[in-house]
Amino acid sequence: MDAPKQGIDALFILLGAIMVLAMHAGFAFLELGTVRKKNQVNALVKILVDFSISTVVYFAVGYSVAYGTSFFVGADVLVQRNGYELVKFFFLLTFAAAIPAIVSGGIAERARFYPQLVATAVIVGFIYPLYEGIVWNQHFGLQAWLKALTGDEFHDFAGSVVVHALGGWIALPAVLLLGARSNRYKKDGAISAHPPSSIPFLALGAWVLCVGWFGFNVMSAQTIDKISGLVGGQQSHGHGGRHLGGFVAW
Amino acid sequence: MDAPKQGIDALFILLGAIMVLAMHAGFAFLELGTVRKKNQVNALVKILVDFSISTVVYFAVGYSVAYGTSFFVGADVLVQRNGYELVKFFFLLTFAAAIPAIVSGGIAERARFYPQLVATAVIVGFIYPLYEGIVWNQHFGLQAWLKALTGDEFHDFAGSVVVHALGGWIALPAVLLLGARSNRYKKDGAISAHPPSSIPFLALGAWVLCVGWFGFNVMSAQTIDKISGLVGGQQSHGHGGRHLGGFVAW
Amino acid sequence: MDAPKQGIDALFILLGAIMVLAMHAGFAFLELGTVRKKNQVNALVKILVDFSISTVVYFAVGYSVAYGTSFFVGADVLVQRNGYELVKFFFLLTFAAAIPAIVSGGIAERARFYPQLVATAVIVGFIYPLYEGIVWNQHFGLQAWLKALTGDEFHDFAGSVVVHALGGWIALPAVLLLGARSNRYKKDGAISAHPPSSIPFLALGAWVLCVGWFGFNVMSAQTIDKISGLVGGQQSHGHGGRHLGGFVAW
Repeated sequence: MDAPKQGIDALFILLGAIMVLAMHAGFAFLELGTVRKKNQVNALVKILVDFSISTVVYFAVGYSVAYGTSFFVGADVLVQRNGYELVKFFFLLTFAAAIPAIVSGGIAERARFYPQLVATAVIVGFIYPLYEGIVWNQHFGLQAWLKALTGDEFHDFAGSVVVHALGGWIALPAVLLLGARSNRYKKDGAISAHPPSSIPFLALGAWVLCVGWFGFNVMSAQTIDKISGLVGGQQSHGHGGRHLGGFVAW
Repeated sequence: MDAPKQGIDALFILLGAIMVLAMHAGFAFLELGTVRKKNQVNALVKILVDFSISTVVYFAVGYSVAYGTSFFVGADVLVQRNGYELVKFFFLLTFAAAIPAIVSGGIAERARFYPQLVATAVIVGFIYPLYEGIVWNQHFGLQAWLKALTGDEFHDFAGSVVVHALGGWIALPAVLLLGARSNRYKKDGAISAHPPSSIPFLALGAWVLCVGWFGFNVMSAQTIDKISGLVGGQQSHGHGGRHLGGFVAW
Repeated sequence: MDAPKQGIDALFILLGAIMVLAMHAGFAFLELGTVRKKNQVNALVKILVDFSISTVVYFAVGYSVAYGTSFFVGADVLVQRNGYELVKFFFLLTFAAAIPAIVSGGIAERARFYPQLVATAVIVGFIYPLYEGIVWNQHFGLQAWLKALTGDEFHDFAGSVVVHALGGWIALPAVLLLGARSNRYKKDGAISAHPPSSIPFLALGAWVLCVGWFGFNVMSAQTIDKISGLVGGQQSHGHGGRHLGGFVAW
C-alpha cells in the first residue's frame, strides 16, 4: 500500500505546483492590464523569461543553497518515491520564481530588460535560497537561537514572509532607485494619469492569482496527511515536522 | 491509515471548491463580455462583491439555517478530520454564491448596485439556505412526506434544482420588474441592438464555467469513495447516504 | 479499502481530462489571438464544434476502433470501479480532439467551415483511432513485430507522436493544399503582413496550454500508483503495463 500513498503525495504537491505555475500567468495578466498598451507585451515576456531564468538557476544553484541537495544524480535515484523530490523541486521553484514576479510588478514600465534578468538570476540563485534555507532548513542556527530565546521557532507555513515579504522588500529599493515613470509628474507637480490599459485583463490576472493561491497555501502541507482546512491550527511545520499549538494566520 | 483517507477527502472537496470558485470568474467574464463596454467594470465588481457578501452571510447565518451547525467554535474542533467541515463549508459557499451570480447575469445593466447587494445578503443568508435545508438536510419533513407519497425522496445530486433553478426562478421576477434596458426599444417598436462588447471575454467566461462545472458536479459526491464517472448511477445521496437505483441525469 | 484506491484513480484521470479539456480553450485563444480580428469568432466556434463532433464520433465509433470496447451497455456495467472506464474515455477523448484542434490552428483563416467538420469526423472516428490502436493497443501486431526486431516496442507515453505528430502530419498536406492566405503575397512578391489581432489573448492561450499540459503528461500514467515526477524513467507502459529501462523524453 506504499505506492498509492507515495503517488498521492506526488499528485498533491504537483497540483500545488500547477496552481502556482498558473499564478505566474496571473502575475503576467495583472501587470499587462495595469501598464500602458505599449508595455503589454513587455509585461508578458518579462514574466515568462523571469520564470525561465529562475528555473535554470534554482535547479543548478538555488536549491542546493537552500536544501543542500541537487538533482545531478542518476535517474534511478530521481524516480524514487514516484519522483516526489523532483515534483517538490518544481513546487518550490514556483515559489522562488514568485520573487522576481513580485518585483517585476513593482517596477513595471520603469526598468530595462537585461539588468532585470541579471537581478532575477542573483535573487533566485542566491539571495532567496539563502533566506529560504535559514527559515525552512535551519541554516546558520537562527531558528535554534530563536527557539532558545522565545520557546518556538519562527514559523512561516506558506511563504507569507519567506516569499511575499521578501519580494516586497526587494522591490522597495528598486522602486526608490528607479523613481516615478518619466512624464508621470508635470512641471507644475500635477499627476499625469496612466490609466490601466485593460481592466478585464487586470481582473483576469487577479482572478487567476486568487484561484491559484490555494495551491500556494494548501499544498504547503507537502503531504496529503497534513492537509488542513484550518491552515496552521494543527499543522505541522512544513519542513521540520513540529506541531504548533495556536492559530497561525496565513 | 485514517489520516490519508481523511486528507484525500479534504483535498477532494477542496478541489471542487477551487473549481467552483473559478466558475465565479467565469460568471464575471461571461457578463463582462456580454454587456456594453461602459458596464464591463460593473460586471466584474458585482460578481466580486456578491461573492464577498455571500461569504459573510453564509458563514454567519446561512450555513446554520441549512445545516444547524456553525463555525463559532474552538480551533481544536475546526481542525478535526483535517478541517474537512471547513472545506465543505467553502465548497457549499461556492454553490450558495452562484445564486446571486446567476441573478446578476439575468439583470445585467439594469439594476442599481446597492439594492442588489441587499438582495444578495437576503438570498444567501436566508432564502437559499432554507430551501437547501429542506432538500439536502430533511428540514420540515418535506423529503419524508415525499418518500411516503412516492416511495423516494426528491434527489438533486449537484444542485441543478437547488442552486441553478432557484437562481433562475429568483431572476425571473427581477427581470420582469426591471424590464428592458432603457432605449432598448425605439418609439416605433424597433429593437436597438446592444451587441456584446467582447466575444473573446464572453467565450473565456463560458470556457471557465465549462471547465469548472466538473467541480460542481463531481465533487458533489463529497467523499472520494463516492466519486463516479457515471454520476447518479450508483451514487449515494450527497448528504443522506442513501443509494439510488436508477440513472439520474444532472 | 478498494473503494478509495478506485476512487483516487478515477479522480486522478478525471483531473487529467479536465486539464486537457482546458487546453482546448488554450487552442481556441491561441488561434483567436493569432488570426485577424474578423476571424476571431470563427476560431472560437471551430474549436468548440470540433470538440463536439469529436465527442460524438469518438464515443460512437473511434473508441471501439482503438480499444474494441464500447459504452452501449447497461448502467450497472458503467458504474463499476467508480465509473473509471467512462472517465478514461473522457480523458482519451480530450487527446483525440486535440488532433483537429492542431490541424485547425495550422489552417486558420484558410479553410471553409463544413469541409473541416467532415474531416474532423473522419480523423477522430477512424484515422486517429486506427493509429492509436496500433501503438497503444497492439493492433495488427506492429508492436510485436517491432519488439521481435529491436527488442522493445515503440513507446509513446503521453501522445507526443500518437497525438501531436499525427496532428502535425495531417495538417501538413492541408496547409500545402490550401496554400497561403489570399492577399498574403502582393503581386511583386512582397509579404502583406497580418499581425496577430491580440497578443494578450494569444498569450492567454499559450499559458492555458502550458498549464493544462501537465494533465496531458502526468495523467497519462492512468493510475495514481504509476505517477512519476520523472516521467518515463520507471514508468510502465500506459496501456500494456510493461516497464521501461531507460529515460524516455516526452
